Amino acid sequence: MLSMKKTILGISAALALALPLSAQEEPNATPGPSDIVNAAGQEDWTVIAPEDLLVMTLADAADGTPRKVAIQLMPKPFSQGWVDNIRTLARAKWYDGTSVNRVQDNYVVQWGDPGHDNPESEGIARKPLPEGLKVMAEDKYTFGAESFPLNEALLNQDQVKRTTGLGRYGFESFNKGWPLGAISKVQMPDGRSVMEYWPVHCYGMVGVGRNYSPDTGSGAELYTVIGHAPRHLDRNIALVGRIIDGMEHLSSLPRGKGALGFYTAAEADKRTPILSIRVASDLPEEQRPQYEYLSTQTETFARYAEARANRRDPFFITPAGGADICNIPVPVRPFEYTDKE
Amino acid sequence: MLSMKKTILGISAALALALPLSAQEEPNATPGPSDIVNAAGQEDWTVIAPEDLLVMTLADAADGTPRKVAIQLMPKPFSQGWVDNIRTLARAKWYDGTSVNRVQDNYVVQWGDPGHDNPESEGIARKPLPEGLKVMAEDKYTFGAESFPLNEALLNQDQVKRTTGLGRYGFESFNKGWPLGAISKVQMPDGRSVMEYWPVHCYGMVGVGRNYSPDTGSGAELYTVIGHAPRHLDRNIALVGRIIDGMEHLSSLPRGKGALGFYTAAEADKRTPILSIRVASDLPEEQRPQYEYLSTQTETFARYAEARANRRDPFFITPAGGADICNIPVPVRPFEYTDKE
Repeated sequence: MLSMKKTILGISAALALALPLSAQEEPNATPGPSDIVNAAGQEDWTVIAPEDLLVMTLADAADGTPRKVAIQLMPKPFSQGWVDNIRTLARAKWYDGTSVNRVQDNYVVQWGDPGHDNPESEGIARKPLPEGLKVMAEDKYTFGAESFPLNEALLNQDQVKRTTGLGRYGFESFNKGWPLGAISKVQMPDGRSVMEYWPVHCYGMVGVGRNYSPDTGSGAELYTVIGHAPRHLDRNIALVGRIIDGMEHLSSLPRGKGALGFYTAAEADKRTPILSIRVASDLPEEQRPQYEYLSTQTETFARYAEARANRRDPFFITPAGGADICNIPVPVRPFEYTDKE
Repeated sequence: MLSMKKTILGISAALALALPLSAQEEPNATPGPSDIVNAAGQEDWTVIAPEDLLVMTLADAADGTPRKVAIQLMPKPFSQGWVDNIRTLARAKWYDGTSVNRVQDNYVVQWGDPGHDNPESEGIARKPLPEGLKVMAEDKYTFGAESFPLNEALLNQDQVKRTTGLGRYGFESFNKGWPLGAISKVQMPDGRSVMEYWPVHCYGMVGVGRNYSPDTGSGAELYTVIGHAPRHLDRNIALVGRIIDGMEHLSSLPRGKGALGFYTAAEADKRTPILSIRVASDLPEEQRPQYEYLSTQTETFARYAEARANRRDPFFITPAGGADICNIPVPVRPFEYTDKE
């Protein structure tokens, strides 16, 4: 067995830390969010399982640029029925030959079958779905637990109420690498409350398009958020993952002129072809991209969140003193194992 | 004098109401946000003064699409020194021949002189600024008042704490058509508090690029937000307006590969040329676009905000019960006066 060396490739573009508007770079007197992330020990990072990673290959851009998008799927207990369906669809090669059909500014990019029910699908044949897809119930949009697993270091910060805790959309925190909302749903007979929690619609999150209730979608129609977090969709649609690399290949696509931002028949040539979507674990080992995320239960993550809320980079004069949960993106970075001679 | 008829042209694309993901349209049993806006009486709308409106004309897109962007400038008391500078720069035709130089995903699009200090400006001649520009002080990022003018109808709603009032970034509400943050700054001798308030960095807001403090920027370098609201920039940069039409011509531009999303020398051809920026009042009357916004002090606006926080459109199962201030975009629409025979 070869001795392997892990090489970090830098924070992925999709979730790169927001940098100041200034043109110059200066050493920081106090560590900023990116300094904290860069200094994090290897033990603070969690590798994303290849089974939880999708690779979407779009047709090359007009100028020949290759376009690959990496999607991290949510782990248990979140949305697993839909996540299973997405793996089933990928393994049936169902997505191959579908396209990006909808780009609505400050809202979503949606991909899948252009013939699927949408305001611009008239006259387009619908692509049959493979067998074996699960039909999920609406109560699977949320998850229940006697207690919500908290990052104690985050909780203990003076600033906790300004980054996690109760906000406009209920209680908010992070767990298992994901931003979550929660409410106290039922009082237990002994006075304890049961938490109901759910993933939140931050920029880059991936969800399952659906028709009217009781339809919950299969996973064949997927979308990602390309604007301010549309939190009103939380608890109303299944979230299944997030874009961790190549987001710019989706967010910079031309906006559709049809209803809801779907491309009209007259602009059918704007639908970006999807060549393939594969589960990374199904790819030959040497073709698998590898990513890791900063574990959200660590003391490092708590310091990172606090630094996002109180920016001390030289550009800033007045720290905000708080940060929206979607303004604390979970850092994700690619890495590769190389032979160590 | 001709008798004139006012014709509403529909909500502008830039601030169009976010619509559900569903493909179908059904009549609403209860009025949704767009129903409330569409039913608003003419007295609820405020016309934007031509002096407060910029028209930016970009070079046509590769496919020949004309690209015009309308920017509403902030009225008194907000950022007036910078707003004056922007009118001075537009009247000197300084912006003509400049370009869009920076597109950073989930952050900002920035335009102005490609030779202005930036990580990719080396070797590009700097364009001299016109005379007469004001140098603004940092304390002009915020505004003081003994009391913050509130929309009473909004304040009286049960849901007020979930749309306005205290949030993660301090107190939030709307005034004069703009989303504002505020803190209670000083206690008066008689116990009253003085409010310090400021415009907030929602999607589409326009701000003034600057170098390190004490530099506050002139208005020659402008940016707009193309992702989740970067509220950590509030009180640290001057906001001067918002994009009210043509946002898609900026948000869908290719992301830059250089530091901070600036285009590198190798991708200089991606810099979108700015043909002109004009104050609408300087245009011949027949070329002036006209817009109006839903007044934020009205009872209609309060009902609209409540409906944004509690979506009852048929697509939704679980209303959020709250809404971030940047998820309550102020409705803006174009109109024109036509001869009434």
